Amino acid sequence: MPLSDTQREPATTPEANVAQTASPVTLEDIRAAAERIRPYVHRTPLLPSQTLSRMSNTRLALKPENLQRTGSFKARGALNAMLQLSPEQRERGVVTLSAGNHGQGLAFAAGLLGVRCVVFMPETAVPTKVAAIAGYGAETRFTPTMAQAPAAVETYQKAQGLTYVHPFGDPNVIAGQGTIGLELLEDEPDLDAVVVPVGGGGLLAGVATAIKALRPDVRVVGVEPEGAPSVSRSLAAGHPITLDRLDTIADGLAAPFAAPISQALIERNVDDVVLVSDDEIVDALRLILERTKLLVEPSGAAGVAALLSGKTGVAAGAQVAAILSGGNVDRERLKQML
Amino acid sequence: MPLSDTQREPATTPEANVAQTASPVTLEDIRAAAERIRPYVHRTPLLPSQTLSRMSNTRLALKPENLQRTGSFKARGALNAMLQLSPEQRERGVVTLSAGNHGQGLAFAAGLLGVRCVVFMPETAVPTKVAAIAGYGAETRFTPTMAQAPAAVETYQKAQGLTYVHPFGDPNVIAGQGTIGLELLEDEPDLDAVVVPVGGGGLLAGVATAIKALRPDVRVVGVEPEGAPSVSRSLAAGHPITLDRLDTIADGLAAPFAAPISQALIERNVDDVVLVSDDEIVDALRLILERTKLLVEPSGAAGVAALLSGKTGVAAGAQVAAILSGGNVDRERLKQML
Repeated sequence: MPLSDTQREPATTPEANVAQTASPVTLEDIRAAAERIRPYVHRTPLLPSQTLSRMSNTRLALKPENLQRTGSFKARGALNAMLQLSPEQRERGVVTLSAGNHGQGLAFAAGLLGVRCVVFMPETAVPTKVAAIAGYGAETRFTPTMAQAPAAVETYQKAQGLTYVHPFGDPNVIAGQGTIGLELLEDEPDLDAVVVPVGGGGLLAGVATAIKALRPDVRVVGVEPEGAPSVSRSLAAGHPITLDRLDTIADGLAAPFAAPISQALIERNVDDVVLVSDDEIVDALRLILERTKLLVEPSGAAGVAALLSGKTGVAAGAQVAAILSGGNVDRERLKQML
Repeated sequence: MPLSDTQREPATTPEANVAQTASPVTLEDIRAAAERIRPYVHRTPLLPSQTLSRMSNTRLALKPENLQRTGSFKARGALNAMLQLSPEQRERGVVTLSAGNHGQGLAFAAGLLGVRCVVFMPETAVPTKVAAIAGYGAETRFTPTMAQAPAAVETYQKAQGLTYVHPFGDPNVIAGQGTIGLELLEDEPDLDAVVVPVGGGGLLAGVATAIKALRPDVRVVGVEPEGAPSVSRSLAAGHPITLDRLDTIADGLAAPFAAPISQALIERNVDDVVLVSDDEIVDALRLILERTKLLVEPSGAAGVAALLSGKTGVAAGAQVAAILSGGNVDRERLKQML
């Protein structure tokens, strides 16, 4: 892995503090985001699970962002970005691309503020996610796959004068997702490790930035599906790359590319990024549902999947938080997975 | 219904206060229970749901006791009873009857305290509930139906010198369940109404006692399945009756009889008890899962089912809490309901 502990400077040295101030997203940005979005989002709890603790040989607690407004953490970043638009930008509207959850988050935020919102999605998007975006009053447009979406967004954005709110490469979006890191440390001051599902890496970048600024000793691990390893491949390459193929049941983690800002934050603040298979994800989804009574979508189960398969490098008995990133799964699809 | 508002004395008159002190379970009992069980149970949150609010024409928040230890609220009452046993009683052990959730609660509490625990169940009990009880280290015994269980427990209790911890007719059990009422008012001081699933009526009795002692103006409504109306029939009869037939998908609410103590508290403190059909329960279960990402068992959906079908007499726009009483449902059974 590109980010072993030995390669990283200790974050408590004066040099590290200087580096921290040059970060594209800072602890202060994340704290400001928390204040900004507080009236509009749920303060999700941290739920310990005895069964999953025993099975993962850790003291495991779950951060259920599947219970968040819009059914995923994406409401946080979208709101933090939307609330900082200028009056002119609000007047013209926003555009984005999304497999569904960021689209729901942005559509929700745009609906609250009365701003026009256009979401480009792949034709394979989960139908209930498409319906939810439309339900918030946003416009949906489709490209054959996610790979065609960035060019379509760029063309449309220029033609219509819209602001592009990037799903994970935007510092305001990243700061919004980072508010989860603040809440984890508030609820569990003795945290030893955090395990985070990774699509484009915005959640991981934000949470890692918050956690390492406050508690550099806490291990932060990202978890990607084997069939959509955009962030780990980008870290290995040393720059954001684009995948030519996505093949995972975790539609919410199927980002075909990484982004410079999130990659810089991940390189600086993340201890490891590991991969899980679709089978491991589905097993974890079933277990989370049966044992903790929480419905997660496949993406939301990735962190627990990595802990159960022993891939995270977390010490036995460690106090761990796993972020359940979302719960937007169709009933028919769920039925097939049970 | 036997308990219209006009039939009940206002709880704020001096007469009512005198009557309150003679109650078999008091606010002080419930407060003491909260202190007693605090180290062992989860403090569940209160989760507002926009979608269910819109659909029920209320401001609806959910109390997710499906996230409670053992997967249902029953851990509360069982712990409060077990923690008050004498050393001699602990030495000999406890016995109960249960469709599953009270058995899990008691087995869990007994396991914590190292006390022998025997649970009589109907042969039709949900297999995962049976397995969970055994997993906590309790002994399971079976009668053909729940109707045979009371006699079997009585015989066994006497032969073995065990203490019978009644699933809902025990004041300590009722006080434990009542702790949910305290938490509801802590989290939502402006509460207008509470909607509570009803099997034997222990949860309803405890919650109503807590709520009415603190906020007599809050409407408290119980919800029974049409196929197991033991509490509403007992209220109509003026004394606890036994049903000769149970027919509901909500196994956790299929109590074939009521009990004097819970009935006295319900008569005193509950505004109404209404009935829902199995179809309404399954529709509500699906909706709760899809929209709030919480897995409830059929019993746990009864309160929301009543709100969605407009049966609770709750005013439009009222601030309502619905207790999701449990989440212990087999995967195969869930699959059939989806």
